[in-house]
Amino acid sequence: MSDFKIPEKSYVSRFFLSAGRCNAQGDLPLTSLSQHLIDIATAHANSLDFGYDRLRRSNTSWVLNRMSIDMTTYPRINQSYTITTWVVTTTRLYSDRAYAMADIDGNIIGYALTRWVAIDIDTRKPANLKEILSDGLPDTGVNPPMKGFRRLTPVSDAEYKIDYTFRYCDIDCNRHVNTTRYLEHIMNLYTVDFFDTMKPVKLDIVFHHEAYFGDRVSILRGPADDDNEDKVEIRRGDIALTVATLAFKPRK
Amino acid sequence: MSDFKIPEKSYVSRFFLSAGRCNAQGDLPLTSLSQHLIDIATAHANSLDFGYDRLRRSNTSWVLNRMSIDMTTYPRINQSYTITTWVVTTTRLYSDRAYAMADIDGNIIGYALTRWVAIDIDTRKPANLKEILSDGLPDTGVNPPMKGFRRLTPVSDAEYKIDYTFRYCDIDCNRHVNTTRYLEHIMNLYTVDFFDTMKPVKLDIVFHHEAYFGDRVSILRGPADDDNEDKVEIRRGDIALTVATLAFKPRK
Repeated sequence: MSDFKIPEKSYVSRFFLSAGRCNAQGDLPLTSLSQHLIDIATAHANSLDFGYDRLRRSNTSWVLNRMSIDMTTYPRINQSYTITTWVVTTTRLYSDRAYAMADIDGNIIGYALTRWVAIDIDTRKPANLKEILSDGLPDTGVNPPMKGFRRLTPVSDAEYKIDYTFRYCDIDCNRHVNTTRYLEHIMNLYTVDFFDTMKPVKLDIVFHHEAYFGDRVSILRGPADDDNEDKVEIRRGDIALTVATLAFKPRK
Repeated sequence: MSDFKIPEKSYVSRFFLSAGRCNAQGDLPLTSLSQHLIDIATAHANSLDFGYDRLRRSNTSWVLNRMSIDMTTYPRINQSYTITTWVVTTTRLYSDRAYAMADIDGNIIGYALTRWVAIDIDTRKPANLKEILSDGLPDTGVNPPMKGFRRLTPVSDAEYKIDYTFRYCDIDCNRHVNTTRYLEHIMNLYTVDFFDTMKPVKLDIVFHHEAYFGDRVSILRGPADDDNEDKVEIRRGDIALTVATLAFKPRK
């Protein structure tokens, strides 16, 4: 990964992993990393006035459509780390954003990609980004050195299932289930013992449909796919709300 | 509240409420505030070398025993706010810490108190703070202008109950259920509609016993007590793991 050069038009934030924010293994949780990616995207957008405030003026809101994360190792308890982000490319329908995670010594420990769409707050339909942000976004054209987004399919034969009803703390200010909460419910398909021996090294997740307070869903885990990645899904009735794959490697 | 003077031996952190971290009402969630109180206590303790690292050298760890929060209003989406903390008093068995929350203009919007104990990592029994930290803590003797800790009792006649099994994301690096997750499960006793009209203005919570991965619990809400505060509890079998009261006021 070391030859990769982060583009100049980027935004960086520094973090510290406090004891109370670690997972059972003393690492930065994948769910917290996911929330950081959303936060730093928001901060970068706000700093250049293409954030939620700007979109609200055209009655639209940013919504995360998908996310892909590759991690070789995770920040540990009481360690500092940085996340750097930049805009890759923007079309009428979406804007892709990249991230590089680095440890305290500046060594890159992972990359990520997110895809954002703007939706009309009332109709919940996609809006045209080229119209809303006619002055453009700071596209760099620079992709991170990781696989791009790929097609994800629902779980066809679940090996394990949790039934769940979305509750108050699952809902965010868009009045739908928060991205990070989807991911928490997915991580909860695994045990503490499992994560004592394995670490998640790759996540691909796509958010197809919104879920709301009180929705009853099934959280499903299927067998690993051809790339040895677990297929997971959150399903409401016949509808695949969220589909994802997770890959793991043994801890040393 | 305005006549209160924060002591000089205090530690302050500034925060920004990002869209992705709001609750359904666009406020800072009470659960996030609780996590901030833990984080800033940790940061203050680390900065003066009486944090987790120091305690680990005597095979002990800080554990939050109880928390009391009074809020008049909450930070809103895209607003900055500060939390200031100081040590009130330390005995052999516990250390009490106070907090003041302020909005961007410096107006105090709430106070909090936390009680911390040190437990032996192996026996899980309380350790003597005067022995572990023989050079003392930066006690100020200054209590915040709010009611102190009071006796909390279990729910005797539950009006509403959720059965739950603790899962992976509930567990922290102490290998027990995380404080903030207890509080999330308690907040989940209420609906989004309820919080659209009411805001939580007072929380008192005490953590009696540790819970672990896979523990099956009931999350209970009883009728309001004599002070018109809801009694809530997390119970495993006959054991009251966590007992709390919550008071609400109408939103304007």
